Amino acid sequence: MYVKGAGMTKFGIEDVSSRQMLLQSIREATRDISIKDIDAVVLSTSDISINGERQKHYSSLLTSLLKKRMPIITVPAVCGGGGASLWTANKLGYDNILVVATEKVQAGLSTAITDEILQAADRIWEQYEGLVFPAQNALVAQQHMLKYGTKLKDLSLIAYKNHKNATRNPKAMFYKKEVSLKKIMKSPTVASPLRLYDCSISVNGAAAVVLSRDKTDIKIVGSGLGTDTISTFERPDPTVWTATIRAAEAAYSEAGLTPDDIDFAEIHDAFTIVELIAYEDLGFCKKGEGKNMIRDGIVEIDGKLPVNPCGGLKAKGHPISPTGIAQVVEITEQLRNEAGDRQLASPKTAIAQNIGGAGGTVTVNILKKVGA
Amino acid sequence: MYVKGAGMTKFGIEDVSSRQMLLQSIREATRDISIKDIDAVVLSTSDISINGERQKHYSSLLTSLLKKRMPIITVPAVCGGGGASLWTANKLGYDNILVVATEKVQAGLSTAITDEILQAADRIWEQYEGLVFPAQNALVAQQHMLKYGTKLKDLSLIAYKNHKNATRNPKAMFYKKEVSLKKIMKSPTVASPLRLYDCSISVNGAAAVVLSRDKTDIKIVGSGLGTDTISTFERPDPTVWTATIRAAEAAYSEAGLTPDDIDFAEIHDAFTIVELIAYEDLGFCKKGEGKNMIRDGIVEIDGKLPVNPCGGLKAKGHPISPTGIAQVVEITEQLRNEAGDRQLASPKTAIAQNIGGAGGTVTVNILKKVGA
Repeated sequence: MYVKGAGMTKFGIEDVSSRQMLLQSIREATRDISIKDIDAVVLSTSDISINGERQKHYSSLLTSLLKKRMPIITVPAVCGGGGASLWTANKLGYDNILVVATEKVQAGLSTAITDEILQAADRIWEQYEGLVFPAQNALVAQQHMLKYGTKLKDLSLIAYKNHKNATRNPKAMFYKKEVSLKKIMKSPTVASPLRLYDCSISVNGAAAVVLSRDKTDIKIVGSGLGTDTISTFERPDPTVWTATIRAAEAAYSEAGLTPDDIDFAEIHDAFTIVELIAYEDLGFCKKGEGKNMIRDGIVEIDGKLPVNPCGGLKAKGHPISPTGIAQVVEITEQLRNEAGDRQLASPKTAIAQNIGGAGGTVTVNILKKVGA
Repeated sequence: MYVKGAGMTKFGIEDVSSRQMLLQSIREATRDISIKDIDAVVLSTSDISINGERQKHYSSLLTSLLKKRMPIITVPAVCGGGGASLWTANKLGYDNILVVATEKVQAGLSTAITDEILQAADRIWEQYEGLVFPAQNALVAQQHMLKYGTKLKDLSLIAYKNHKNATRNPKAMFYKKEVSLKKIMKSPTVASPLRLYDCSISVNGAAAVVLSRDKTDIKIVGSGLGTDTISTFERPDPTVWTATIRAAEAAYSEAGLTPDDIDFAEIHDAFTIVELIAYEDLGFCKKGEGKNMIRDGIVEIDGKLPVNPCGGLKAKGHPISPTGIAQVVEITEQLRNEAGDRQLASPKTAIAQNIGGAGGTVTVNILKKVGA
């Protein structure tokens, strides 16, 4: 399928309803197509309850909002819902299909968010034990450090890079808000070794993409979805995220491409260690060598393989379901040379990796500039 | 796609975890295929929170439970989640795909269930006003009575029929528990005109179906999904459920069949009036004449077009997401002449209608006995 349109709200903590953000992102994504020409919709939202919106039938609400009766399904996958929706929409076989996600996460009750997000973990082994996601990912980071000599500073450099990139992205939570490496390295520990700035920020937002069989200048050339055990401790090696490997294999194989063909990547940096591990699992370097990607500047915005030029979940912000779609919005702008101050030098091929939970669901999409 | 296997738990109010029911239904549905030959899964569950299970990433939990890494997505649509999952799975294009739904609804807190289910209604116009689903459907019933002369006794007869059928279904909540017409007609009013026995019962349960490209004796010959505004009052005529009409049109057209070709139907009788309206919207009679279908005995188990031989949501029970899949389990058993005491006389073609909300999402699947 081809990308016919893409749009997103600014990511932030303003008190706006999820439906208002939803419509705003759809408006932006449908500049080149009328709603009446859309055949179906795949929606993603994770039914956060702390925001008071209490909406378990959002697909039907969307019918009311769009004033058009057509097939609409909802595909949530916690933080990986956007990617899972794109994967599903790409397979459903419609001429024009809208993929949209919206989420109001911030509603003035920050401890409630942690508890809400914890519902993406296993109830018995993780939730009861208080193994919140920063702690889960801290355990993974500890393993990676012990096994491969990854240093805390490597993680800090990833945070620094993504914050630096976000200062150039008007849609980012941290637009024009520089964060120094020193501040990052001196920030309080959340779950050792992860500090505050190793964790992404939960924000409100929405993102939308229209996929079409009509040829445009951007095509999804490969799409893969993989799953893994819900708990990292169930896996033979917690530093290997098999769902990423499986999803990437499927996407590369469908695209007929290898990691060497990728010009830049949007990676699901829910935590800095997650970005570093993705360098390895997406095949950009060998297992254990992720640290060199950041040390050698390869993943910097002016490096050989820029990662998260938009600022990533870290500094653009992470509104759960919309994240995976927002990655494709960024890729679309970059491939069209419309990314303003953060524009890369004429990229042709990009990859997006979106994760649900601690690697329990991973989608990988590869997009390519074609024809134009 | 063909039906390779089908299974379900007994529907009831026992205190069993949703994952235990899930595995039980999968075990029953995979008698003729190994889990290792399943390529992907579409799961449906609606994240009920009152049961203490708190699980927003069930697709990944399922990977842990099945001990197999493969694409798994979740497609909830409140009470219509099972049908929406079948529709999605049928389109995804895998050789063998498992469709499964599970739900623990009853957890000893009956008023909480009403509030939980109300989250499927619009927040602003319905939830704040306390327009619970019995009340919404009561308004529809009032309109239908005023406009078409439908009587309360017509609704009672539908309840009576479904309870009678359920007494013969070992998987039904009301198996072997006869309910007299007098008891139904004297039961307390819930929302006028609907009485207690006009409302289905919320139960715990799970159901699973394996769809396959391999030819078997049962084929999904048509599948349609329609959506409508979330609130009935937004519709030009609340007695017409457009999503059913749209979904049925798509399914009949794909199957190359008309309502006359249908031997029996599984209809989403969340309320008796909903079954009656579906007679009309599925094309079995003209608008307003639904009452004659029950008065004339057409929809009785020994009638010309039996409806809900399994007992329906009314008396088999309604576990939200699993309902739409359980309908296909019943159809499979009937088409294979394996329905025991409730077996119809050699049916060849059947239709299933599954509804989310008050007609906000409707799936219609048509299944046919082939080859054998």
